[in-house]
Amino acid sequence: MAIVGASGYTGEELVRLLLAHPNVDLVAATSRQLAGKGLAEVFPRFMHHKTATALKFSNPEAKQIAREAGLIFLALPHGLATEFAKPLLSAGARVVDLSADFRIKDANVYEEFYGHAHPAPDLLGKSVYGLPEIYRDQIRGAQLVACPGCYPTSILIPLRPLIRRKAIDRKTILVASMSGVTGAGRKVETDYLFSECNESVRPYGVPKHRHLSEIEQELSILAGEKIVIQFTPHLVPVNRGIITTICADIAGNVVKMDPALIFSGAYTKEPFVRLLGDARLPDTKNVIGTNFIDVAWKIDKRTHRLIVMSAIDNIVKGASGQAVQCMNAMLDLPETAGLI
Amino acid sequence: MAIVGASGYTGEELVRLLLAHPNVDLVAATSRQLAGKGLAEVFPRFMHHKTATALKFSNPEAKQIAREAGLIFLALPHGLATEFAKPLLSAGARVVDLSADFRIKDANVYEEFYGHAHPAPDLLGKSVYGLPEIYRDQIRGAQLVACPGCYPTSILIPLRPLIRRKAIDRKTILVASMSGVTGAGRKVETDYLFSECNESVRPYGVPKHRHLSEIEQELSILAGEKIVIQFTPHLVPVNRGIITTICADIAGNVVKMDPALIFSGAYTKEPFVRLLGDARLPDTKNVIGTNFIDVAWKIDKRTHRLIVMSAIDNIVKGASGQAVQCMNAMLDLPETAGLI
Amino acid sequence: MAIVGASGYTGEELVRLLLAHPNVDLVAATSRQLAGKGLAEVFPRFMHHKTATALKFSNPEAKQIAREAGLIFLALPHGLATEFAKPLLSAGARVVDLSADFRIKDANVYEEFYGHAHPAPDLLGKSVYGLPEIYRDQIRGAQLVACPGCYPTSILIPLRPLIRRKAIDRKTILVASMSGVTGAGRKVETDYLFSECNESVRPYGVPKHRHLSEIEQELSILAGEKIVIQFTPHLVPVNRGIITTICADIAGNVVKMDPALIFSGAYTKEPFVRLLGDARLPDTKNVIGTNFIDVAWKIDKRTHRLIVMSAIDNIVKGASGQAVQCMNAMLDLPETAGLI
Amino acid sequence: MAIVGASGYTGEELVRLLLAHPNVDLVAATSRQLAGKGLAEVFPRFMHHKTATALKFSNPEAKQIAREAGLIFLALPHGLATEFAKPLLSAGARVVDLSADFRIKDANVYEEFYGHAHPAPDLLGKSVYGLPEIYRDQIRGAQLVACPGCYPTSILIPLRPLIRRKAIDRKTILVASMSGVTGAGRKVETDYLFSECNESVRPYGVPKHRHLSEIEQELSILAGEKIVIQFTPHLVPVNRGIITTICADIAGNVVKMDPALIFSGAYTKEPFVRLLGDARLPDTKNVIGTNFIDVAWKIDKRTHRLIVMSAIDNIVKGASGQAVQCMNAMLDLPETAGLI
Repeated sequence: MAIVGASGYTGEELVRLLLAHPNVDLVAATSRQLAGKGLAEVFPRFMHHKTATALKFSNPEAKQIAREAGLIFLALPHGLATEFAKPLLSAGARVVDLSADFRIKDANVYEEFYGHAHPAPDLLGKSVYGLPEIYRDQIRGAQLVACPGCYPTSILIPLRPLIRRKAIDRKTILVASMSGVTGAGRKVETDYLFSECNESVRPYGVPKHRHLSEIEQELSILAGEKIVIQFTPHLVPVNRGIITTICADIAGNVVKMDPALIFSGAYTKEPFVRLLGDARLPDTKNVIGTNFIDVAWKIDKRTHRLIVMSAIDNIVKGASGQAVQCMNAMLDLPETAGLI
Repeated sequence: MAIVGASGYTGEELVRLLLAHPNVDLVAATSRQLAGKGLAEVFPRFMHHKTATALKFSNPEAKQIAREAGLIFLALPHGLATEFAKPLLSAGARVVDLSADFRIKDANVYEEFYGHAHPAPDLLGKSVYGLPEIYRDQIRGAQLVACPGCYPTSILIPLRPLIRRKAIDRKTILVASMSGVTGAGRKVETDYLFSECNESVRPYGVPKHRHLSEIEQELSILAGEKIVIQFTPHLVPVNRGIITTICADIAGNVVKMDPALIFSGAYTKEPFVRLLGDARLPDTKNVIGTNFIDVAWKIDKRTHRLIVMSAIDNIVKGASGQAVQCMNAMLDLPETAGLI
Repeated sequence: MAIVGASGYTGEELVRLLLAHPNVDLVAATSRQLAGKGLAEVFPRFMHHKTATALKFSNPEAKQIAREAGLIFLALPHGLATEFAKPLLSAGARVVDLSADFRIKDANVYEEFYGHAHPAPDLLGKSVYGLPEIYRDQIRGAQLVACPGCYPTSILIPLRPLIRRKAIDRKTILVASMSGVTGAGRKVETDYLFSECNESVRPYGVPKHRHLSEIEQELSILAGEKIVIQFTPHLVPVNRGIITTICADIAGNVVKMDPALIFSGAYTKEPFVRLLGDARLPDTKNVIGTNFIDVAWKIDKRTHRLIVMSAIDNIVKGASGQAVQCMNAMLDLPETAGLI
Repeated sequence: MAIVGASGYTGEELVRLLLAHPNVDLVAATSRQLAGKGLAEVFPRFMHHKTATALKFSNPEAKQIAREAGLIFLALPHGLATEFAKPLLSAGARVVDLSADFRIKDANVYEEFYGHAHPAPDLLGKSVYGLPEIYRDQIRGAQLVACPGCYPTSILIPLRPLIRRKAIDRKTILVASMSGVTGAGRKVETDYLFSECNESVRPYGVPKHRHLSEIEQELSILAGEKIVIQFTPHLVPVNRGIITTICADIAGNVVKMDPALIFSGAYTKEPFVRLLGDARLPDTKNVIGTNFIDVAWKIDKRTHRLIVMSAIDNIVKGASGQAVQCMNAMLDLPETAGLI
């Protein structure tokens, strides 16, 4: 395995997960800025690990990486990912991309939300959206997997069975999410300095956060019709973790609504979906460092609405853990390998 | 002025505000647990202040307090407040209560939300809801003021002009709030230990938080008809601060909707309401330690909804600062005295 | 394996480590308060684990526990541990105690520092101090292991080779440490509430913290003469982690002083001691969740002193991880089993 | 008053203090990056203040500033301050500099610690070290005041009376300090990102932090002989606050040592020095947002050492508050004006 762009938070977490993975080896990690430095030098928490001590960050040379590794993770900023994916795919390598570049099927929607034309619209049709709970079969055989964003993961898994079972009114879906600061990446900007985030809570990206594009795309596919939702993200002072709270009108008779049946039917066999039921509420601290998504729900008879809440680690199930889960599927390994 | 129950976070903040107030003196502070100890001994941050050094916590004896002070703040747990308010009111004292005991006008609603019959339903009709932005005139002459809860303050101020101007569909109001941990009071419970709250984000009180009773009461009064809303609070790891995000369907034509006009019309002269407009978003760090509420908004043309966001310090504008603002009104002092 | 007193932070961490351990099974976890509740119910982060779902907290009955498990961890408050250790040892079980009860060899010193006579002074001679980097051979055959305190671990490992090599003046050892809040245990006291610890830094336990008793005992054994040190601990707002900074006069010629040689000689083969050298400084975030201790040093030619700094996770290498490391030694397992 | 370089944390805090000051007006605030933007736009927490709404950041033009304001605060990075101070002083303005540029009397020492020759060594003799507790009289008449660093403030105030009274052995002074992250300024560097500082504790600047130069200079002046100390700073995840812990051998008979007498003699009349005595320990949360320094002490009879601990807000007493305290002295205002 190789990681292109291993200097950010998702890259570092991929290093952690791959170093500990029982079935695969990390053979290359690239970073323009860090080229020549040892992995353990840059990330001292891996100092004890032989591979981390031996391996140096290299310059990202697509051809060489394709020779060294059959499966390559791209942990690059949006836009750069396409540039690297093209030669890698041409060379026959399999690519798991953690950026937004290949998540959107419609190049016009990409342009609407990302502000520029997609650099390789022909590739959009070839990528598989890397949410194993929905696209497991397609991921197995895929050459190009586009890992979902962190918010979309925390929203799509709870909503999927509700949409498919037509349990909620699709026009009334409102989502509020709270994310830890690693969600912004290792961006060196004033807004993400310790003293700007600590003792601060703030909404941002209102009302049209980029992740809406993939959330609505996937919900619409599930529903078989166009779905538009409200989504309000907030930044909270924790390193990791997302809480998502979804409210929607219950479709039909509230007395007959049985979320336990709906969620159990969908997820009992999913290794990373933990159903808390309607008696407990999620807490990010229960999922930090893991690939789990915890899902809870409440029926509000006063308002005839269903409230569904989820918790994930934005860097694991929301990024690098999900990427490894996809890799496991692609390599016919047990999906939990290296993750539990 | 006297504070009954001065050992909690709202009591301590009242001490801070009254010690610094140019027009009033703090003559008594009570606490069963701390009786006999000096204020500065218990709260070393007031060590330099002569009053805090001289004054000792006393046992809460209603008659004596009524003799010492003409206006008394009750910073007691719900339930206990009524017990103290009765003799104080009988003795002719004016009372500003920070508990929930006198906020609800309907004793049945109180019982529904607080789980027990109200101990003095006859007093409910005599209290004034202590939100100066709505009830300034009544507060001036009131003998008993019931200060609003922290969440209700952050929700009612933004919603009031929208309800009055019929700018939103009253059946579609959804509120998500995030509160700092002082919101739970100085409760010595496992849930509020540092290591349980730090690096944790969690919803709680879903779907029927107690504050709903006063929020819906006040919204219904404003609307002239019963309003029921959705409200989901979350606990986030900051000491102070609430962010409230409100979404509602715009009533009528989105193009004609002009929130700036509506909010300016309502609040331009309010000294503690700061309107951020639709170009900036609120951040709790801008209001910490102050009595301000910052209000921002966005129209979402995609969903035909209005998103309104507010930030307050839950202990100041959400509790003790608001109580002092009420006191200023009751004593015909400038409303900003000791607060700006 | 069994854990007696599994409701605190060290107990919960033992659960985590033993559930993930490849060679041993957790068969019992006791807690008076939680008896009857499932492990996964109390600690939802273990919800996915079969053992955690199946196992319930039981009442701590020494005889039954001794029948169920050959090796028992005691994660009880100081004092209570002795009460449980006695019947367990009589029944032939092996005991790894995480309290302070069996760390001190001299019952008078115990009484001086802990304020009461030791309840079982005869057992003091039978226990082995559970720091594998010093007592590995004795631990292997021990029936009773007394795991070191968190501060002592962070201090003794750096000081040991310096004392043995007579590299520093033993009368000039000054230690300042900073600990995360889990170091206080899951104590439900006002001092450890979120809003009391967050945005707070404070010294405590000055000048005679209890851990001094074991630190000076072990240093004196190493030196072959009585050693008295200065130790100032501080509480800082992180969940986990200890930074220890040690200063001491260099013995003899500063030019000939070679800490790299001294530390490498002592620790190159130790799996959990990571030497950072004199070019990098430790950071708690590099050891959180791990059993590593990171050690760095600087020679200060201006003052003729050596500064040695270490970082550990107080709950892992400072408590439960070290206990598992001892268990591995006692069971002839690889010492890193379940820990790397 | 004017502030040159008002975009950083000390600049922003000067804005806060001067806006609230009863005796002076803020007439200009400069920032190259922010020139043209309104103060309230950049710092929304001042939105309610007329001056902050009216005043715009201007380009730093020394001549114009000297015309507008008689006293100018320089809150610039080290090095830049000299460049601005020169024309201001020539124009007859009085300057309170918050950088390190004028703190060191010996240009060689400056070069040793700051790595380059001092740009205006002739000015070094003209500046007064701005610690009112030592240099009050000189500050009153000074044209150029060099405000002390944050660590030096927290160290010099506790050590001064001990040095003067020869109560401790001057060769045995060891200092460990812990600082909040604003201490690094609003530096946009990876090291100060939220996710790098949160859940992290780390020493830095070991063994020769720049502040040593002014600490040792001032201690040596007080002692009348060269004093060299050990100083180890640590970064801890709080916004504001410094805890300093000083250990030193007691000079002479420990029984006769009476720190209470020594500290009271020195500081009873100082408005910003609060003596906690030997029964209480300092906590940064008691001084945050204030200009106080809290000082406590313990005699350790076991080691014949004195431990003195102090707490300040690094941005207030450690920087901007102290600067305003100096200004008050320079303008013959009550020294507490605008600060209590």
